[in-house]
Amino acid sequence: MPKEGITPRAQDYSQWYLDIVQQADLADYAEVVKGCIVFKPTGYALWEAIQRGLDDRIKATGHVNAYFPLLIPKSFLMKEAEHVEGFAPEVAEVTRAGGEDLAEPYVIRPTSETIIGYFYSKWVRSYRDLPLLINQWANVMRWEMRTRPFLRTTEFLWQEGHTVHATEEDAERETLLILHEVYADFVEKDMAIPVIRGLKSEKEKFPGALRSYCIEAMMQDGRALQAGTSHNLGQNFARAFDITYTDQHNTIQYAWTTSWGVSTRLIGALIMTHSDDEGLVIPPRLAPTQVVVVPIYRNDAERSVVMEAVQRMTAEWKGLLRFKVDDRDNLTPGFKFNEWELKGVPIRVEIGPKDIEKGSVAIARRDQPGREGKSFVPQEGLTARLAALLEEIQQALYRRALAFRETHTADVTTYEELKQQVERGFARCYWAGTMEDEKRIQEETRATIRCIPLDQPQQAGRCIYTGKETTQQVIFARAY
Amino acid sequence: MPKEGITPRAQDYSQWYLDIVQQADLADYAEVVKGCIVFKPTGYALWEAIQRGLDDRIKATGHVNAYFPLLIPKSFLMKEAEHVEGFAPEVAEVTRAGGEDLAEPYVIRPTSETIIGYFYSKWVRSYRDLPLLINQWANVMRWEMRTRPFLRTTEFLWQEGHTVHATEEDAERETLLILHEVYADFVEKDMAIPVIRGLKSEKEKFPGALRSYCIEAMMQDGRALQAGTSHNLGQNFARAFDITYTDQHNTIQYAWTTSWGVSTRLIGALIMTHSDDEGLVIPPRLAPTQVVVVPIYRNDAERSVVMEAVQRMTAEWKGLLRFKVDDRDNLTPGFKFNEWELKGVPIRVEIGPKDIEKGSVAIARRDQPGREGKSFVPQEGLTARLAALLEEIQQALYRRALAFRETHTADVTTYEELKQQVERGFARCYWAGTMEDEKRIQEETRATIRCIPLDQPQQAGRCIYTGKETTQQVIFARAY
Repeated sequence: MPKEGITPRAQDYSQWYLDIVQQADLADYAEVVKGCIVFKPTGYALWEAIQRGLDDRIKATGHVNAYFPLLIPKSFLMKEAEHVEGFAPEVAEVTRAGGEDLAEPYVIRPTSETIIGYFYSKWVRSYRDLPLLINQWANVMRWEMRTRPFLRTTEFLWQEGHTVHATEEDAERETLLILHEVYADFVEKDMAIPVIRGLKSEKEKFPGALRSYCIEAMMQDGRALQAGTSHNLGQNFARAFDITYTDQHNTIQYAWTTSWGVSTRLIGALIMTHSDDEGLVIPPRLAPTQVVVVPIYRNDAERSVVMEAVQRMTAEWKGLLRFKVDDRDNLTPGFKFNEWELKGVPIRVEIGPKDIEKGSVAIARRDQPGREGKSFVPQEGLTARLAALLEEIQQALYRRALAFRETHTADVTTYEELKQQVERGFARCYWAGTMEDEKRIQEETRATIRCIPLDQPQQAGRCIYTGKETTQQVIFARAY
Repeated sequence: MPKEGITPRAQDYSQWYLDIVQQADLADYAEVVKGCIVFKPTGYALWEAIQRGLDDRIKATGHVNAYFPLLIPKSFLMKEAEHVEGFAPEVAEVTRAGGEDLAEPYVIRPTSETIIGYFYSKWVRSYRDLPLLINQWANVMRWEMRTRPFLRTTEFLWQEGHTVHATEEDAERETLLILHEVYADFVEKDMAIPVIRGLKSEKEKFPGALRSYCIEAMMQDGRALQAGTSHNLGQNFARAFDITYTDQHNTIQYAWTTSWGVSTRLIGALIMTHSDDEGLVIPPRLAPTQVVVVPIYRNDAERSVVMEAVQRMTAEWKGLLRFKVDDRDNLTPGFKFNEWELKGVPIRVEIGPKDIEKGSVAIARRDQPGREGKSFVPQEGLTARLAALLEEIQQALYRRALAFRETHTADVTTYEELKQQVERGFARCYWAGTMEDEKRIQEETRATIRCIPLDQPQQAGRCIYTGKETTQQVIFARAY
């Protein structure tokens, strides 16, 4: 029987996603503010967990945080040719302020390369100032026509790193460091989402970048979701904003810059990778609440016995587990089970008078709903058991997502096969086509090149579209 | 001899402040974005420390974080009469987006009571939904004419709490809980800034509030700085936005709301409370770097001996002290001393070949520049000694600021005395005047009622302006 309020995935995946967002109380449609959502406390707590995991890695790799203005003079956007083409159509403009019309409008940042480039031009003087490694946590705005909670909203939250380097080699090293040590490491280890690391095609790269790297994840409907991007901007922005430095030989050189970002889209990726028809599923390392305790009792006498046992049991957990005791008195255990399932808490512990007599508790794993994930275990050694189980769940979620991706990825050798494969997942194939070829394929199949994986085969093959011999493989898929 | 780049306080306090901001590398003027600053890494790290201290307390008192839209339909501002009067003149307006003129402009939030009120009206249904205790970390914008880094900028960062309650009593309890347990506790304990807790006068209260509470700090020029405010909004916003709930007797009631915020102004308060003519001074509990180690050597052989000793010494510090080893090779120790003094690191540890021979190190306290704060101590037991010294510095800074405030606060009984006292600090006096009286005093003295302290005398006295007998005392001061 389907859970109330949740459309089964098999019936309507798209509606299932919206139902999860609503039933797990993650977000509300802003309605009165076009294409925006409110990040409700349960949803925002996921973002806070993502921020912590990323911020730790960003700092561990030598970066510091700063904060640049929300508003950008409109003329700044125009300074880099591809960049203006990419972003100008979707900006929001501030034309009045303090009761007066402005001489030059500002745009609300859609991304900050231009305004940060302006300051870097002032700050960078000598090779001794390099590398400059700065990250910013901020809100950004892109006036999108079609929006979906977390996946695409006009305002969203993100981090954007912006770095300056003396050499192309150093900029490339930075771009890949972020891809591997920050993004892939966090998304795979903490979010339990396997990703393919690769290079974007010319068609899909960031407006103004030399090369864009990305991590791509597969959702449960077989579509791809770009979970993070890291761009080597070459000298494009350095030339547009005059970011130069004096080198060891006293010669003035243009610098090399990078930028990289992940956003609240990751919450969408989290939902669509792990959740099921019962509700949200959160991997333990990311979960704001890892264990919820539901005390079971029928009267005040039982309540006081049970709550005392709960106190004793959880006293040991402090600092080791993130837990919550659901002692709300006006709700039935069944109601609580349902609510915590919807909200994706990894482990539920039930304890009632009979469990206390037997010195045991009942445990339910969120990743295995129903009987399969339920067990009775002794109270003795419970803390260590729960910690181990959380780790087991973390690994199980990753393995399940990886297995799903593998069974939904196929090597294809003809365009016909590709067309069929992108209906169900990723199509891997040899590719030597042009940007125009890729556009034509997109029109015909709604699939694009998600990335040119960094892992490439050692032998050559024939391009699926042009028939040319090539050693380059790509992943085609429909994408969010 | 004054430090290069820093105007002494006695000469020009206002310029001294700007010099500290620049020399400690805390911020840069945005110039191209009116009235904005860039929070440079050193300045932003202070904000991160402030966020951590406040966020912990906000959560410990039962609140959760969420995120609401940046943009507010302009008409929303108009719904609460005092609120529109207070904020409408200083908003920035978005009138175009996605290449088209908007039917109704949005304003960039100057504060979020109105947009959050709209959602609370949807979310709150029953007394069981209350209290609703939500906080938001966000950027806000007020188009100010005269700006100063951190103290007043068109865009600034803050947290704003917005809560809903069933009764006036509960809303009042919340307002005071935030004032005492979150704001005063954090600012006094972590920032070492003593504050006076009080109520705002009618003239100074938040537009739309029933009662505004605040914490007021004294800067080193004797002026007041409002370091945080907590507002009991009564039913004003509940009526404007129709925030109602069904009570236990099935009757529909208007709710009671509160809002409270502190901002990046606190960085300005930090600078102006503790810093000196040598640069920034940061209290140890807040300091991103608490101890900086400067190795002293004249050649490579000495360098390797010294660095090995530094490694050994600091291995023990990990997880106990926030420290940095300044091993930059192209700079002299003197240059480094100067830089870390400017940046306000609480303790500097110097270690050279002679210190290693003697088994000692040199320690310099930032709060006592020059000889006074310098000592030689054994390497043995150094970790515990440094930890104790950090705590001692924390207390010393608080005591010094408190002593300063006390010697610059006077009870005044005539208007003439008040005029003189506000030239040098806080004037405490009996008050039974009207809002018009207060406005006249402001015109004549540039001082306003900073607050009606919660600590009130037990006996009556005569109002300094009207001569009426009253039991109410207030603090007059010039303010930032």
